[in-house]
Amino acid sequence: MKSSHENGCGTITAMLRSGPVFFMESHNGISAKIAEEAGFKAIWASGFTISASCAVRDANEISWTQLLDVVESIVDAVEIPVLVDGDTGFGDFNNVRRLVKKLCLVGARGVCLEDKRFPKINSFAHSKHELEEPRTFAGKIKAGKDAQKEDDFAIVARIEALIAGRPIEEAFERAHMYGEAGADAIFIHSKRADAREILAFMARHASAVPVIVAPTTYFATPVSELFEAGVKGIIWANHSFRASVAAMKDAVEKIARFSSVAGIEPNIAPIAELFRLVEQDELLQSARRYSTFE
Amino acid sequence: MKSSHENGCGTITAMLRSGPVFFMESHNGISAKIAEEAGFKAIWASGFTISASCAVRDANEISWTQLLDVVESIVDAVEIPVLVDGDTGFGDFNNVRRLVKKLCLVGARGVCLEDKRFPKINSFAHSKHELEEPRTFAGKIKAGKDAQKEDDFAIVARIEALIAGRPIEEAFERAHMYGEAGADAIFIHSKRADAREILAFMARHASAVPVIVAPTTYFATPVSELFEAGVKGIIWANHSFRASVAAMKDAVEKIARFSSVAGIEPNIAPIAELFRLVEQDELLQSARRYSTFE
Amino acid sequence: MKSSHENGCGTITAMLRSGPVFFMESHNGISAKIAEEAGFKAIWASGFTISASCAVRDANEISWTQLLDVVESIVDAVEIPVLVDGDTGFGDFNNVRRLVKKLCLVGARGVCLEDKRFPKINSFAHSKHELEEPRTFAGKIKAGKDAQKEDDFAIVARIEALIAGRPIEEAFERAHMYGEAGADAIFIHSKRADAREILAFMARHASAVPVIVAPTTYFATPVSELFEAGVKGIIWANHSFRASVAAMKDAVEKIARFSSVAGIEPNIAPIAELFRLVEQDELLQSARRYSTFE
Amino acid sequence: MKSSHENGCGTITAMLRSGPVFFMESHNGISAKIAEEAGFKAIWASGFTISASCAVRDANEISWTQLLDVVESIVDAVEIPVLVDGDTGFGDFNNVRRLVKKLCLVGARGVCLEDKRFPKINSFAHSKHELEEPRTFAGKIKAGKDAQKEDDFAIVARIEALIAGRPIEEAFERAHMYGEAGADAIFIHSKRADAREILAFMARHASAVPVIVAPTTYFATPVSELFEAGVKGIIWANHSFRASVAAMKDAVEKIARFSSVAGIEPNIAPIAELFRLVEQDELLQSARRYSTFE
Repeated sequence: MKSSHENGCGTITAMLRSGPVFFMESHNGISAKIAEEAGFKAIWASGFTISASCAVRDANEISWTQLLDVVESIVDAVEIPVLVDGDTGFGDFNNVRRLVKKLCLVGARGVCLEDKRFPKINSFAHSKHELEEPRTFAGKIKAGKDAQKEDDFAIVARIEALIAGRPIEEAFERAHMYGEAGADAIFIHSKRADAREILAFMARHASAVPVIVAPTTYFATPVSELFEAGVKGIIWANHSFRASVAAMKDAVEKIARFSSVAGIEPNIAPIAELFRLVEQDELLQSARRYSTFE
Repeated sequence: MKSSHENGCGTITAMLRSGPVFFMESHNGISAKIAEEAGFKAIWASGFTISASCAVRDANEISWTQLLDVVESIVDAVEIPVLVDGDTGFGDFNNVRRLVKKLCLVGARGVCLEDKRFPKINSFAHSKHELEEPRTFAGKIKAGKDAQKEDDFAIVARIEALIAGRPIEEAFERAHMYGEAGADAIFIHSKRADAREILAFMARHASAVPVIVAPTTYFATPVSELFEAGVKGIIWANHSFRASVAAMKDAVEKIARFSSVAGIEPNIAPIAELFRLVEQDELLQSARRYSTFE
Repeated sequence: MKSSHENGCGTITAMLRSGPVFFMESHNGISAKIAEEAGFKAIWASGFTISASCAVRDANEISWTQLLDVVESIVDAVEIPVLVDGDTGFGDFNNVRRLVKKLCLVGARGVCLEDKRFPKINSFAHSKHELEEPRTFAGKIKAGKDAQKEDDFAIVARIEALIAGRPIEEAFERAHMYGEAGADAIFIHSKRADAREILAFMARHASAVPVIVAPTTYFATPVSELFEAGVKGIIWANHSFRASVAAMKDAVEKIARFSSVAGIEPNIAPIAELFRLVEQDELLQSARRYSTFE
Repeated sequence: MKSSHENGCGTITAMLRSGPVFFMESHNGISAKIAEEAGFKAIWASGFTISASCAVRDANEISWTQLLDVVESIVDAVEIPVLVDGDTGFGDFNNVRRLVKKLCLVGARGVCLEDKRFPKINSFAHSKHELEEPRTFAGKIKAGKDAQKEDDFAIVARIEALIAGRPIEEAFERAHMYGEAGADAIFIHSKRADAREILAFMARHASAVPVIVAPTTYFATPVSELFEAGVKGIIWANHSFRASVAAMKDAVEKIARFSSVAGIEPNIAPIAELFRLVEQDELLQSARRYSTFE
């Protein structure tokens, strides 16, 4: 648990300016800690995986303050900056203002807002995705920027035009307007199996506002290709959680089948590793210092 | 999200009476859902792994209402009964009463209380473990039983005497008193690498109160041996979480090293599997029924 | 803290059928307890005053789960049924379903949903009030009714047509459709200083669905007149809170002016009265029973 | 909602040094706002009244994170510094550390810790009050000071020796030790109807650590007398809440008796006053600026 000022290591905006940034998905404190230990320099607090970890849908089924509680746990666990998936901002410009102020309070270093309507549905779901009017969404970005309490808090505008089947021109126009409204970065999203849409967007993106992408479906495209096209940030948007689901499924099925944990014991994290991750030893040492005053 | 009455499938007490029960550890909604799908008939909502998932220590670092929020998410996710790790009850007899009432409210089917002092420290940690006076702890059990709102809510008394290095006689005496106070089951805990303590305890346990164990350290002992000794319940206390930690660590390190998710894609749960687990399709179907009233 | 089943005393629907019901506004546990002691048979958990007690606006500035936490505190404090001001349902039909399920879980006996768009703004505010499409709102009512876990949970449809300046015909048509969709009662809202709109609505309301009103602005109209027109329920929507604000202002200003509480001491509730309200004695008695097991 | 840095106006420690400080009790955002408008320069976020507002007892019946949620609402509502009633710290030195870090995060400017055992009971209740060992409690103070993230966060050590019927010498010795451990102020508590104990304590208190008192029972003693004895801070510990309880009781009883609010309407805060307190107009103005981006 640290103050907001410690989740520094360069702010998200500065990091995006100076070179490619990889954001690793986290859905709780421990996954964030693991990402940091693996060398990642930034965290993506994913609405999709935070929801799925609660066994609910990425359709605003948890409230924005429930999301905030998880974000607080993530920020507490790491030193590196956390970019929060803020969905649509959970309402209008006023909800965005409250979200931004509270995220600053708990020490997050940025929020990503998408231009769908509240309640949104996960972009990969076979549902109808309704977009917000561009000027309404741009108003939210402006309101968020005016509301932030920390100068270096980043607001990323996520464009869902391609997800909603709109022409790339619309994506481009939206990107331009959101940049005018003050967005610190643009996140252009695509659910194609290849990066064609992304590359087409990058070819026309002339502004200085850095662009972030999430190659969940077009993972086969090397990041070098994306960087050459001008992309500045990559979000690995759900992979830590997906690894955990596969592993839990496998472990739990084996335990059920054999009525024993002996077979999986070598493949799971030892208790000692959990203790190391949560700094159990610090508690023992502190007890010596604080249990009684001398 | 279901009402408390749906987490039935036989109550914990009835299940323990009729035959061996395996409780699978869960630390959030999705791990509970995975355990249920694997065939488990009961869930252990672990204080250790719920804390560790938040990257904090199993030393009452999260509040009891934060635990409750996670329990609610677990209960919502499954039909099978959930036994909650209630630590020491988070204070005295009055805190136990509030805990029990709230757990009944959210639909948990039982709570396990341990006879350490608040704040407790995880039993495997190299810390001093202070035990509660037996009569004080038995008073908590009685208070909890009198406070429960659902007749079939189970209160399990966990004995930490062996963890604290006390003689087995004390464990036995405590078990007897806790049974007198109304405990629906006894959880006798040991951190030895073999089951010797557990078997010695079982040899002397004459009462009808069923006994539960957690073979975390003595996992090499076959459960058949424990059942023959009279054990009625087995808690796999932290294994789903430990599987997830190992998998996240492995996946995240690979993603960091290769700046790509392509290599791990075949080994992680597909997006479609996440959608299946959270019943994404139900939302699409319901939208047809409820989006507009005809 | 009681189970949901105890907040009985006749369900809201049955009460509305058998005679006029007065709902007293509450914004926390203690105001609910005071209302119950004064003889009220039902509570109105007001979104306006719950928000204002947090010093925020009645414009969905607190999240729906923060509202839920307050509702839980209110339900715990009383035996009488609690009707919750659920605003617009905090999103679409799916958000309504989650809200209804959670309200059933914590023991509320009904929810009132209004046909404005999320985020809403308080009906007395000089803002533009956008109405939801009637068929969309009716779909929410239907979804809520299908989602409720307790048979006697009431869903009240609040019509904001008159607030939004629409003709009374629209109010009437909406009332009809919401009844068809399953609403257990209609709440027709008006901000006129007289009851003319309400009486005009009642004159045309032919259905068996009971009607509730909140005479905040037309308080000068005797309730007998409203009952004669067929009204079945009266919500005193914010008066307990408004009394508290005036009193706190007066007391605090006097304390500031005189640097003393001596002058106000005779007019404020004694400590002993607070102890009585929270049943302090019960704790003392229980300590005798549970502190140590004999 | 403001960042922690805005709740400045001189820190609590600096204020106590420069002259007498009056802390006005608040139990939610609106009571804090009212206190600030009345001219108070500091807030006392009372555990007793926050609990009582939820209709529960001042005996750690709400969790420390539930208290924290209310504190956040209070801090958001005002510019002046907030001193939080942190009871015993809700456990041992480690719980104190977490409490202090979280209080810094939400922008509180100080915490008061009392030397009773967890769970505590309100000092005015006819219960047995068990004191913490002095060295154990001093260890908590030291741990809290080492854990605070803001330099000017104040930790106040509250001495309950007189409440527990111990001799004044013990109070004095405890005060000395807590000062050594780093306490920024001492709160000496008495439940006598006169200030005799307080004055006796002040006569012997030689250290530079400022002393705070709460004249709840000895309210008849003029504060000038206390200031002359060296007292630096006065906590009006529960009076705003007690004013609200009396007023709600009176209003609600009248509404019940007359089935009308007409009689009380002149004596309760108008809706317009509530709107002013929550800055409703700001929302209307902001809507003009942010609803659509030009």
